[in-house]
Amino acid sequence: MRIIVTGASGFLGQAVLPLLAGHDVVATDLMLSPGVIGVPGDIADPQLQAALFADGCDAVLHLASMPGAAVAANPARGWQVNLHAAHDLAAQAARAGNRPRFVFASSIAVLGELPPDRSVDDATPLAPVSDYGALKAMAECWLARQHRTGALSVISLRLPGLVARPGAGEGFGSAFLSTMFGAIAAGRHVELPVSAAATPWLMSVRIAADNMVHALGVPDLTLPDIRALTLPALRPRMAELVAAIAAHAGTQPQVHYNRQAAVEQAFAAYPPLCSQAAIAAGFRSDETLAALVAHAMELS
Amino acid sequence: MRIIVTGASGFLGQAVLPLLAGHDVVATDLMLSPGVIGVPGDIADPQLQAALFADGCDAVLHLASMPGAAVAANPARGWQVNLHAAHDLAAQAARAGNRPRFVFASSIAVLGELPPDRSVDDATPLAPVSDYGALKAMAECWLARQHRTGALSVISLRLPGLVARPGAGEGFGSAFLSTMFGAIAAGRHVELPVSAAATPWLMSVRIAADNMVHALGVPDLTLPDIRALTLPALRPRMAELVAAIAAHAGTQPQVHYNRQAAVEQAFAAYPPLCSQAAIAAGFRSDETLAALVAHAMELS
Repeated sequence: MRIIVTGASGFLGQAVLPLLAGHDVVATDLMLSPGVIGVPGDIADPQLQAALFADGCDAVLHLASMPGAAVAANPARGWQVNLHAAHDLAAQAARAGNRPRFVFASSIAVLGELPPDRSVDDATPLAPVSDYGALKAMAECWLARQHRTGALSVISLRLPGLVARPGAGEGFGSAFLSTMFGAIAAGRHVELPVSAAATPWLMSVRIAADNMVHALGVPDLTLPDIRALTLPALRPRMAELVAAIAAHAGTQPQVHYNRQAAVEQAFAAYPPLCSQAAIAAGFRSDETLAALVAHAMELS
Repeated sequence: MRIIVTGASGFLGQAVLPLLAGHDVVATDLMLSPGVIGVPGDIADPQLQAALFADGCDAVLHLASMPGAAVAANPARGWQVNLHAAHDLAAQAARAGNRPRFVFASSIAVLGELPPDRSVDDATPLAPVSDYGALKAMAECWLARQHRTGALSVISLRLPGLVARPGAGEGFGSAFLSTMFGAIAAGRHVELPVSAAATPWLMSVRIAADNMVHALGVPDLTLPDIRALTLPALRPRMAELVAAIAAHAGTQPQVHYNRQAAVEQAFAAYPPLCSQAAIAAGFRSDETLAALVAHAMELS
């Protein structure tokens, strides 16, 4: 199977590529990691796009994306990379293949601010509050339309907070959710910008990569008409997460909770989640907090 | 109140302008109708946009749009006019005013193909099947995000089939819904591309213009978080509509129903509609079929 993978050198792409061994993979990113064969370039560049699809296409894993803070800092580039590139890649894929599978890395940011007292399920309306979330929602909408008209076979996967992102920092307001793993494991003092009772939705990068690859083989007919699935995620309280990391590492946690309302609202005030459609289609979470921590520590 | 009106020379804009007497109106369109004072130009041109907002903004009525068939024929221009211009106008309006009201002329095309046996209400998920419908849905999404962050006070109104559009033809696959009024009233033979039992959603241009202007004064807090309302519409069977036009004109209808499945599906296979949020906010339909016909005949 010939699979085009965008964002191949990002933290998710790096975890996905080893899972595609045996396939004919065309990787792309601004710069490709050492040892990765592919076509480097700007995903918003029409010439790069054409090059990616020159020899046909059976599937696309479209992971390339600017993170939220980077989009907020450069909204025009955000439109190009996070929305228009998806539009262009969809058109190229439809031309190059026979209704290829198109997997889009969307985000729970499409949901926006959620009332803390009501569960999220597949019927929850989208109400993004960030440019990032709005662009992901708009790309979902455009891709679903390509699915309905038969040009592509689309699955958009809404990713929760992924941990641990190596070198998380630039462009990620949620970086603390990644850096806390290594810091707590090393016994260092950690200041968290959320309360002990805060509740993020989390998934390890490893399980996220499994889910992306699983999406390549999910039958068309099992998915809802909007073609977007909110992936199952764990929802630990921060204090539970801190304790699990310390237990995994055998250290004593030294954590100070210094809640910043905007950060907690954006990244760690998520209500209970009921991902029925995604679970029915075989997508999965890390299952247990201990497993989430173990998976996250592989990368931190 | 300083009101920027885009698409001011379109069939809806022409009906809206007289209702804004007494306001400081800045009209724009590719070409302005004789007697209309404003700034002619391409709504996708950043220089035109800047000129429109140079002296401030209390409200925007964004009516400019390429019709569906025109978008299908030139998708790249469709993105520019039907999506990106809305993005740019929103940014300009937010800069030029103090959280101005932004009224967007959206479309029931955002809903896509609807199962005939289930009513549509405010919770019906969007599933556009045309580029036109997808772009309207994406623009709704982007504008709602501007509302949530406080930059604008947004209302998107999803318009049903508007009758009668003067000179309807180019770019409108639904032109038969407009041309049938004059033809039946004149006693001419009419061939309709739908069945006698087909059910369009219809509103007169006059009531649509009333609703657009009503949106300028609707309080912010009464609307759902998605900021988009499916306007109430009449849902006559085609045979009832034909009879009502003939009765209004005092003619004998000569109609041949030559159903084309794709046309009927796109424009005249709508299920019952329950527009609760729009009705609660004071928007209205033509109320009776006789009134719809009388209003439509004013223009045909």
